[in-house]
Amino acid sequence: MGRKIKEECGVFGILEQAGTDIAPDIFLGLTALQHRGQEACGIAVSETEGTVGNCSFRKDLGLVSEVFHDPEFLGKLKGNLGIGHVRYSTTGASVAENAQPLVLSYIKGTLGLAHNGNLINTETLKRELVRTGAIFHTTTDSEVIAFHIARERVRTATVEEAVLAAARKLAGAYSLVIMSPRKLIGMRDPWGLRPLCLGKRGPAWILASESCALSAVGAEYVRDIEPGELISISAGGIHSDRSLQISRPAHCIFEYIYFARLDSRIDGISVYDARICAGKALAEAHPVEADMVSGVPESGLTAAMGYAEHSGIPFGYAFYKNSYVGRTFIRPTREARSSGVRMKLGVLDSAVKGKRIVLVDDSIVRGTTMANLIRMLKDAGAKEVHIRISSPPFRHPCYFGTDVPSGEELIANQYSETDLCEKLRQKLDADSLGYLPLSALPEMVKGLPICTGCFDAGYPFPVPESRH
Amino acid sequence: MGRKIKEECGVFGILEQAGTDIAPDIFLGLTALQHRGQEACGIAVSETEGTVGNCSFRKDLGLVSEVFHDPEFLGKLKGNLGIGHVRYSTTGASVAENAQPLVLSYIKGTLGLAHNGNLINTETLKRELVRTGAIFHTTTDSEVIAFHIARERVRTATVEEAVLAAARKLAGAYSLVIMSPRKLIGMRDPWGLRPLCLGKRGPAWILASESCALSAVGAEYVRDIEPGELISISAGGIHSDRSLQISRPAHCIFEYIYFARLDSRIDGISVYDARICAGKALAEAHPVEADMVSGVPESGLTAAMGYAEHSGIPFGYAFYKNSYVGRTFIRPTREARSSGVRMKLGVLDSAVKGKRIVLVDDSIVRGTTMANLIRMLKDAGAKEVHIRISSPPFRHPCYFGTDVPSGEELIANQYSETDLCEKLRQKLDADSLGYLPLSALPEMVKGLPICTGCFDAGYPFPVPESRH
Amino acid sequence: MGRKIKEECGVFGILEQAGTDIAPDIFLGLTALQHRGQEACGIAVSETEGTVGNCSFRKDLGLVSEVFHDPEFLGKLKGNLGIGHVRYSTTGASVAENAQPLVLSYIKGTLGLAHNGNLINTETLKRELVRTGAIFHTTTDSEVIAFHIARERVRTATVEEAVLAAARKLAGAYSLVIMSPRKLIGMRDPWGLRPLCLGKRGPAWILASESCALSAVGAEYVRDIEPGELISISAGGIHSDRSLQISRPAHCIFEYIYFARLDSRIDGISVYDARICAGKALAEAHPVEADMVSGVPESGLTAAMGYAEHSGIPFGYAFYKNSYVGRTFIRPTREARSSGVRMKLGVLDSAVKGKRIVLVDDSIVRGTTMANLIRMLKDAGAKEVHIRISSPPFRHPCYFGTDVPSGEELIANQYSETDLCEKLRQKLDADSLGYLPLSALPEMVKGLPICTGCFDAGYPFPVPESRH
Amino acid sequence: MGRKIKEECGVFGILEQAGTDIAPDIFLGLTALQHRGQEACGIAVSETEGTVGNCSFRKDLGLVSEVFHDPEFLGKLKGNLGIGHVRYSTTGASVAENAQPLVLSYIKGTLGLAHNGNLINTETLKRELVRTGAIFHTTTDSEVIAFHIARERVRTATVEEAVLAAARKLAGAYSLVIMSPRKLIGMRDPWGLRPLCLGKRGPAWILASESCALSAVGAEYVRDIEPGELISISAGGIHSDRSLQISRPAHCIFEYIYFARLDSRIDGISVYDARICAGKALAEAHPVEADMVSGVPESGLTAAMGYAEHSGIPFGYAFYKNSYVGRTFIRPTREARSSGVRMKLGVLDSAVKGKRIVLVDDSIVRGTTMANLIRMLKDAGAKEVHIRISSPPFRHPCYFGTDVPSGEELIANQYSETDLCEKLRQKLDADSLGYLPLSALPEMVKGLPICTGCFDAGYPFPVPESRH
Repeated sequence: MGRKIKEECGVFGILEQAGTDIAPDIFLGLTALQHRGQEACGIAVSETEGTVGNCSFRKDLGLVSEVFHDPEFLGKLKGNLGIGHVRYSTTGASVAENAQPLVLSYIKGTLGLAHNGNLINTETLKRELVRTGAIFHTTTDSEVIAFHIARERVRTATVEEAVLAAARKLAGAYSLVIMSPRKLIGMRDPWGLRPLCLGKRGPAWILASESCALSAVGAEYVRDIEPGELISISAGGIHSDRSLQISRPAHCIFEYIYFARLDSRIDGISVYDARICAGKALAEAHPVEADMVSGVPESGLTAAMGYAEHSGIPFGYAFYKNSYVGRTFIRPTREARSSGVRMKLGVLDSAVKGKRIVLVDDSIVRGTTMANLIRMLKDAGAKEVHIRISSPPFRHPCYFGTDVPSGEELIANQYSETDLCEKLRQKLDADSLGYLPLSALPEMVKGLPICTGCFDAGYPFPVPESRH
Repeated sequence: MGRKIKEECGVFGILEQAGTDIAPDIFLGLTALQHRGQEACGIAVSETEGTVGNCSFRKDLGLVSEVFHDPEFLGKLKGNLGIGHVRYSTTGASVAENAQPLVLSYIKGTLGLAHNGNLINTETLKRELVRTGAIFHTTTDSEVIAFHIARERVRTATVEEAVLAAARKLAGAYSLVIMSPRKLIGMRDPWGLRPLCLGKRGPAWILASESCALSAVGAEYVRDIEPGELISISAGGIHSDRSLQISRPAHCIFEYIYFARLDSRIDGISVYDARICAGKALAEAHPVEADMVSGVPESGLTAAMGYAEHSGIPFGYAFYKNSYVGRTFIRPTREARSSGVRMKLGVLDSAVKGKRIVLVDDSIVRGTTMANLIRMLKDAGAKEVHIRISSPPFRHPCYFGTDVPSGEELIANQYSETDLCEKLRQKLDADSLGYLPLSALPEMVKGLPICTGCFDAGYPFPVPESRH
Repeated sequence: MGRKIKEECGVFGILEQAGTDIAPDIFLGLTALQHRGQEACGIAVSETEGTVGNCSFRKDLGLVSEVFHDPEFLGKLKGNLGIGHVRYSTTGASVAENAQPLVLSYIKGTLGLAHNGNLINTETLKRELVRTGAIFHTTTDSEVIAFHIARERVRTATVEEAVLAAARKLAGAYSLVIMSPRKLIGMRDPWGLRPLCLGKRGPAWILASESCALSAVGAEYVRDIEPGELISISAGGIHSDRSLQISRPAHCIFEYIYFARLDSRIDGISVYDARICAGKALAEAHPVEADMVSGVPESGLTAAMGYAEHSGIPFGYAFYKNSYVGRTFIRPTREARSSGVRMKLGVLDSAVKGKRIVLVDDSIVRGTTMANLIRMLKDAGAKEVHIRISSPPFRHPCYFGTDVPSGEELIANQYSETDLCEKLRQKLDADSLGYLPLSALPEMVKGLPICTGCFDAGYPFPVPESRH
Repeated sequence: MGRKIKEECGVFGILEQAGTDIAPDIFLGLTALQHRGQEACGIAVSETEGTVGNCSFRKDLGLVSEVFHDPEFLGKLKGNLGIGHVRYSTTGASVAENAQPLVLSYIKGTLGLAHNGNLINTETLKRELVRTGAIFHTTTDSEVIAFHIARERVRTATVEEAVLAAARKLAGAYSLVIMSPRKLIGMRDPWGLRPLCLGKRGPAWILASESCALSAVGAEYVRDIEPGELISISAGGIHSDRSLQISRPAHCIFEYIYFARLDSRIDGISVYDARICAGKALAEAHPVEADMVSGVPESGLTAAMGYAEHSGIPFGYAFYKNSYVGRTFIRPTREARSSGVRMKLGVLDSAVKGKRIVLVDDSIVRGTTMANLIRMLKDAGAKEVHIRISSPPFRHPCYFGTDVPSGEELIANQYSETDLCEKLRQKLDADSLGYLPLSALPEMVKGLPICTGCFDAGYPFPVPESRH
């Protein structure tokens, strides 16, 4: 609803027995990861026996079901080793050229690479290469990573060493899935900012951004790739290198609050549990007398259930969501008599009439949608509307692959910390308003070390003063 | 999920002041009614002043957002009087020729017609016309209705009289929205089988299948058109004719159970309330000791809340629904390692583990999906799974515009009435299974007279022995 | 080039042995007739044994290769009896609804109809039907013809009698190809205004607008359908009815001058021969001293060869035609630095430099293109440019299915008959200009009776004062 | 018709005054060059003032009119400096990734490059780069050229020096159009294998593969870029460097015989004149008594006119070409009753009946089409058919950017040199057959030094034994 924070990417990789085509599995895996990026997607595959390194791929702007709408497209992608990518771009222009996986020829044949995350030293890394005569086809940091891997490969004995050598130069967030002629390699940045997990289905090994993609292909979840770990899978087995591990990782809390799928488990924590927990903490921090707890569909529903459970106030639906008003919904007229949110959500009059309602959502960006929803509830006869947000207010940019809006766009930045709740309450015409306290986050993820940069500028390492 | 019963159509009509283009309103209204038909849609408009009767239209296979994906298409539809239609077809071939509204030239100029419902005497009515040399372009009963109206118009003084004269010949279900050069006419069959309601926005009058479409265009709900009522709207005002009314209507109960939108109100009854009520009655009829009540998203969630409320067992989510697995999702391989339902729904492991679960849905058609869901819950650690269906088992065909599957396809028809629950429970590997009793229906709709033909063959009037 | 006169339609029909699918033949036949209409097309087929009358069809806006771009579309059209149509519409809006063949259900099952030509009494015929309660789905006169056939069929013993009875009411041009459940019927208006011929390939009979479509499907040309003749083809053989024949037909001369394909033979006359003959007559009527005779590609090339042959002046190319500048070529800017004609045609500098050139075309509509071509030739060094038009100037509307522009659009209508050549020569900056004399037409078609209405208002029967 | 030899590319570049958008000019120029490549195309533009180096581009598979079908696409390409490319690929897979222009970021900002021609030392050049850690996104030799330019730019003072330094390493054919932030650069290989010319329109300079593209944008032809010449155009004027010139160029004769447009002038020779000359030489070398000389449309028509002129036998049309049977024509059935050539060409029966015909074409690849045409002529009553080919038989591969089929595919390679004409005549069922003698080529191009490698292996420099 309205303006949401956006994740940038999802990755998937699989190595099956020679002779088994895995493009259909990647299709299923990417469909399960579609929530992580809806702008572009791609699949690249090759054989590990026979015509090794003969990589075929297809990538374009669009959803997975759009780019691969013709079953023939999948049928043409032959091979038992493959990777895939879904992308959402934060950079203005959304061009097909920037779609992934990257498929490159380098000193050892074909290199495929899919990347989730954002670097903060891209310009430095690029300048280093360009000065020796390098050319770049895209504006992605992923190409910079690939180029550094290729450079390192010249002087290293194995592709794994090249990936590690390149990784040592990277500052920022990266979960990589790499396909070299006969190997599938996964690599996660030392802070573990973006997720990556490992699964198994019979003889096949799978790497995916989230565990929900493992279920989608009928695989068992094995474990998460550790922060700073490189994992290399080939016909000969699976090997791990942890030489880049650091003492204190910093996982992204927003994966739990918003990005990841409700049925995923990331770094040992169930996303569902984390949201229920946030709801409970919210009830603890901001109790209120009310008749019903509800959530903004879909983003606020789970935390709302946690709030209901802890407060003892019954959970109920307040809105119906029209699933036909999608991403591409075009408002037919500028002076539209009906706001976009009214098309997307309909109030359940008889459920809300005469009631004091606690309405939970995961975040407030501009506040426009929330103001509309409160208005709709009151028009339908709600006596009171109490807003509860299942995350702290975010006030600082994210440098690591999420699309947190810049300062002015954020309503939270228009008020001082002490004033925020009351001023925002007035502006939205709510009866009360409360954010999740920062102190509640550790419990949500059972003590997992997290990055709280977007809330309190507590980034895990120094960041540039301003992101361009 | 899986095979569902399908509604056939939704209709919308609007008359605004001359000079105001209403195609954007029809677009919004049809988007709100999209759940009633996703196969084809169309919009027809004309001016009531100036170039009267100069009707422009666009209709095609596809969703509203697809057929009108180019904003220019709406911009070309100029006029203050218009009607629209969304369609799902029960007849095998889905051809663009059968899309509505029908736009015809007849003795008085242009006639536009949109129809929701099914006649049972189409063949007789068609034969009557064909014998005098008539030709038909489509295979719809809607064209037969339009032709009879045109025939009657030759000898009647007004278009209203012609519609009523034609309606007297029709047996079956019909909610009609008709556009004659300067009038917007609505007509509902005497049994009130399909819904139709009236709304107002400033000087404009609106007719729509459901009240949710009124909200979508910012209009107030005025009232439902009564069974057997014809309503005629023109610049001169609004007139009603009830000469076709009968003593005992028979509203379709499935509108409340499944078809209509949760936020609609039909014939005075809130769809939300009716489903909550069904859930409560289900809890009353089939209680069980359990730890959580959940519903199959989206169809079973509301009744599940009713069950939870009445039983005191907490409501909770058991599944996550992937909204990117749509209507057109193509399973990439026949021997797909992952079933379609696993792509569409993911289990929330930590929510279901170790729990005794009541799982509610609105109906069971083939049983395949339900068996898969039970399996998924048990794989995730659920201790028990108790299935509750918020409607009675349907065993008889519907002749009035819904797509209830034929005998063999229905799993309920494979068992005797007494055996059904136990046999089905075994087949699905559930721990218990209960259907809503037929006797609970009246309370759901607060005594509104209903058609229960699909459950007990209690049709409101004699029907053909077999539907062709 | 520029604005050309446009033909409205082409028709094709075939009856093969039961068990042979003929949709691919219709596809080939329509592709051969594509020059007769590029706006829309369609194919309808059915079986004459087994599931008789179960007609399947596909029609839409676009070229044959576009509408049937997916080979699967043809594969789905099963049957040994079928008809097809290509359409160009003279009526402003080009809507898919008006595409043909019409496929209708009537008293005897399914009726398919494809029509080339225009009636002049459509309004009268339509009014007659509408007054008895008829409805019309399209704005075509073809639907009016179909309806009258259906009406007549109620009281006649055979479909042939119904077609003849309907035909007796029609005034204007019509070549019809009709498909009744087991028969293929062809009918040509009594004046023979539009062409229709018969072919044979083994056991199959074929009807087509032009003989080139017979060659395209590997059939032999048998003969032309005679003016006023109805031909009926069934498994039982072929029967002819000439009861509507009249003493003096009036064939359309423009088929020879411009519309028909160069390799077709119509009513016994080779189109190629007719154009060569026109060129010779033009040389006889308007001789000039020159170094080269050339034609505007493609329309003027054949007559130019006739001119060259008769005058003894060598024939040569003056222009290259860019075949990639098609129908849908969009000029990139309004203030385009290059005119459209310069994109479409390039001058062959070394062929024209220093030469006196006779440039032949088949007609002049607005004169804009011709003025551009003369300019291009002179810029390239041509010493003189003599324009020769291989038809008389047309000054009157055509009511019979061609798209002769209305009065003001025609440059010939801006001058008196005596002034025309000199004034037009000055305007175009040509060195001389000559039209084919009206008196030369009979020889072109070896005395075949022709309609010369567009040249001298000599229509074969009374026409309305103004075409609507 | 049938299998033809294919050119690989066309290039276009333009520098206008700052403030003038030139994407529409590139669109027109590429449309004029479309015959040089129909697989993919692209346009890249940037500003030379203001936001310098901010390059926008669009490239994809398809014709120019397809890739830029939406006028909005051109409107979004803002800038006064730009280049364009049309491509036909000889490498199996035709993928969008290989479309040009290449748009790269390198040490000095953005580098755009469009390339026509083929290198023979690509592998060596690529290996050299890959060994230092380079990555490649495409399989084109054009990317290899661009990478070498970027490498050289690190140590050269100007982009021109970098291009020249890179060019010194290249062996093979290349006409390059390059766009560096403020300059438009053209470069032609020292042999002048592929064409490139210079034009002027007011303040704008234009580079194009053929002069026809200059006319298309309203520019004057200035001169051809010389073999080995680099030309650099900027706001400061135009500069030339001839340091790579060699004593003996080797222009591609096939540009005159087949590839180039009839209205182009290449290296001072009119393509039209060259083909007329070839026809005359053919008549001189292989005279025959006949009644008509004709050509296979369009490829053989001009040489046929030369033959006619020299022999005194009248020129005439033998075939009509259906322009709707395009590139994408799908034969509807495998066992098609009508061959593809019959769909594309129709015989002009009355023109050929009873005549002895000389039929001219520019080449014979497999012979299938020619055999069909001879059969069609004889079926239509031609008494004799004498085949004349306006080029020598080609027997050797081309390494320089044309798609001459490999050995077995070429019918000429199935016979010895002495036997060829007689054996081929028999196979095609012709009455006589003659090729243009190799000795006639110099006169065609007025003594211009040419490459005759494909005829006699007389390549201008050593070539690899076998092209991969």
